Amino acid sequence: MFEVLQTKGQARRGRLILPHGVVETPIFMPIATKGAVKTLSSQDMEKLEAQIILSNTYHLLLRPGFEGIKKLGGLHHFMNWPKPILTDSGGYQVFSLSKMNKTKEEGVIFQSHIDGARIELTPESSIETQLAIGSDIMMQFDDVAAGGADRERHEEAMERSLRWARRSFGVFDAVVGASGRSPLHPDMTVRPSLFGIIQGGTHEDLRECSLRGLVEIGFDGYAIGGLSVGEPREEAFRIVDAIAPQMPVDKPRYFMGGGMPEEIVHYVRAGVDMFDCVLPTRNARHGTLFVWNVDPENWNPIEGEENDNFYQQMHITNEKFVFDESPIDPFCDCETCKTTSKAYLRHLFQVGEILALRLATVHNVRFYLRMMEQIRKTI
Amino acid sequence: MFEVLQTKGQARRGRLILPHGVVETPIFMPIATKGAVKTLSSQDMEKLEAQIILSNTYHLLLRPGFEGIKKLGGLHHFMNWPKPILTDSGGYQVFSLSKMNKTKEEGVIFQSHIDGARIELTPESSIETQLAIGSDIMMQFDDVAAGGADRERHEEAMERSLRWARRSFGVFDAVVGASGRSPLHPDMTVRPSLFGIIQGGTHEDLRECSLRGLVEIGFDGYAIGGLSVGEPREEAFRIVDAIAPQMPVDKPRYFMGGGMPEEIVHYVRAGVDMFDCVLPTRNARHGTLFVWNVDPENWNPIEGEENDNFYQQMHITNEKFVFDESPIDPFCDCETCKTTSKAYLRHLFQVGEILALRLATVHNVRFYLRMMEQIRKTI
Repeated sequence: MFEVLQTKGQARRGRLILPHGVVETPIFMPIATKGAVKTLSSQDMEKLEAQIILSNTYHLLLRPGFEGIKKLGGLHHFMNWPKPILTDSGGYQVFSLSKMNKTKEEGVIFQSHIDGARIELTPESSIETQLAIGSDIMMQFDDVAAGGADRERHEEAMERSLRWARRSFGVFDAVVGASGRSPLHPDMTVRPSLFGIIQGGTHEDLRECSLRGLVEIGFDGYAIGGLSVGEPREEAFRIVDAIAPQMPVDKPRYFMGGGMPEEIVHYVRAGVDMFDCVLPTRNARHGTLFVWNVDPENWNPIEGEENDNFYQQMHITNEKFVFDESPIDPFCDCETCKTTSKAYLRHLFQVGEILALRLATVHNVRFYLRMMEQIRKTI
Repeated sequence: MFEVLQTKGQARRGRLILPHGVVETPIFMPIATKGAVKTLSSQDMEKLEAQIILSNTYHLLLRPGFEGIKKLGGLHHFMNWPKPILTDSGGYQVFSLSKMNKTKEEGVIFQSHIDGARIELTPESSIETQLAIGSDIMMQFDDVAAGGADRERHEEAMERSLRWARRSFGVFDAVVGASGRSPLHPDMTVRPSLFGIIQGGTHEDLRECSLRGLVEIGFDGYAIGGLSVGEPREEAFRIVDAIAPQMPVDKPRYFMGGGMPEEIVHYVRAGVDMFDCVLPTRNARHGTLFVWNVDPENWNPIEGEENDNFYQQMHITNEKFVFDESPIDPFCDCETCKTTSKAYLRHLFQVGEILALRLATVHNVRFYLRMMEQIRKTI
């Protein structure tokens, strides 16, 4: 269930009510690809005040596997994470990671990138896997066109995604529809959600067609997929600016897989509610930290001109930090900034201590979550 | 300063009073080789109730370097660790890690294993480096014979170590002697300590000669070096059993670089007070966990027959743990055991999440520290 509490321009402040709790939107979802946000424990994520995390059906399907995750009582129990989880459908990873894949109308047959095992993923099996994971928000299985694909391929992928949306909805509805509960969490009275995914590349008319088809089926939320895949930023902005206002106002809107802080601000201003991205965690592991240029308490991302000067990227391994005993980000309230100097963190990266990766990740995840907190405050 | 508070047989419970605080002995010192206990922050070490950590002069001399560590205000400040630090002298690492080294009476010239830079380490420069680090306990610079060396080489190394002990003492005394304070911590009224190192391989007479020479100089504590380097356990036991009772009763006794839990128990019963070892942290990173077979509260390591059945080594990546939802060690009070199932930790190792290394390290370090807590309780 979703409620819009407040709007400012197109931007919305809302509340997503899920089996494992309430999520205040706009929200950023840290990525726990294989059942852990890289370098961080579930308890760390709670301390960082993450409200919801994202996990990848494709990776969990490989290990611990469908039967494994069922036997382990679902992902919340397995990773000891009490709050909501969103899972993607596996569609995107099948195309980007598997060694070999073959798409038919039925679904996709692919080889595991771990051991080469042949696995079939269909709209039905994707939803069944997500039900076994016990996700609070499940994503339809979709056909994802490659970044540089032509219009014809985008049209095909969009139309197949629509057909797969119907089939995804069918399985979900058959299981969750009557009881209104997750079969894995029958004690929880709140219904899990199923989101449809809008495809169509950078073609506005295909995107609109995709959205219309999904709304006709009637999902609990709608995602914009297939962007942040290498297209120019302006192209992604153009599509989101055109499509977001057409998306149902009473349903959550999710931009998949993006992006840089100023991009998230742009999408929030266009009316998007939910985000996920590997940037804070991946950049952290490469020693690139997001730091505030302004006191976030005084930052108003929703009003005035858009800009990216509210933060900077700090390359902590830079020689200039060798004797810099100041905190990484004096505006940040994370454990790393409270305890660690730039010089010490730089040293840890230099000598190859894996503690460096954790300290940097703590900070970057907190930066993104804090950014969302301030975005919510100013809507 | 050191006080023996209680004895049981040869075992001693004591108290080591150092510039950065009091250490209850017998104690295990986790190893922060390059300025961090691998995977853990200084704050993690405080939560684990570590009383003192060990860091390596050799590694710190390479990075951040002598001038670097001086400019950074010493290691406590650099790594934000408020409690005592012991540093080794660099002697052992020069022989085990550097690409090329040449020992003369003056000292050792070696090539950095990082960038090949030529560095000279002498008794004087080792102590000066440890003074710059601001160590609570500094170790004399010593000449370390290889594990398989003959008696002649052991005799030479022992005698040179004695001469280097005198020179180490000379520098330390010139700086610390008059003021009774660490030059880096003039506000701290407690004097840092300098320990001598007993060498002589597995030759009892050489060990005794070494000990006599060191006692003549008069150190704040005495260490047994050059064991735990591949010799049969019985040989190490024989030397410690013979030498420990001859060591000054009013000074702390430190067994360097060992060992397995039952070995530490043996050495405590022989009268040793201090230990350090890479086993808990290194084994953790390979998925090998130390777990209690008995409730440590009811374990009496000091009385009765010695045995190693109070614990076991658990190889968490073993297939048998794939669906084992029980905690790693129900007797353990660490964060990992309170939050993480065997199945989840196994999964994290299987999929290569570096969180696994941290969770395992937290547990193993806590196991060793808890073992020492119980050893102290039963003396």
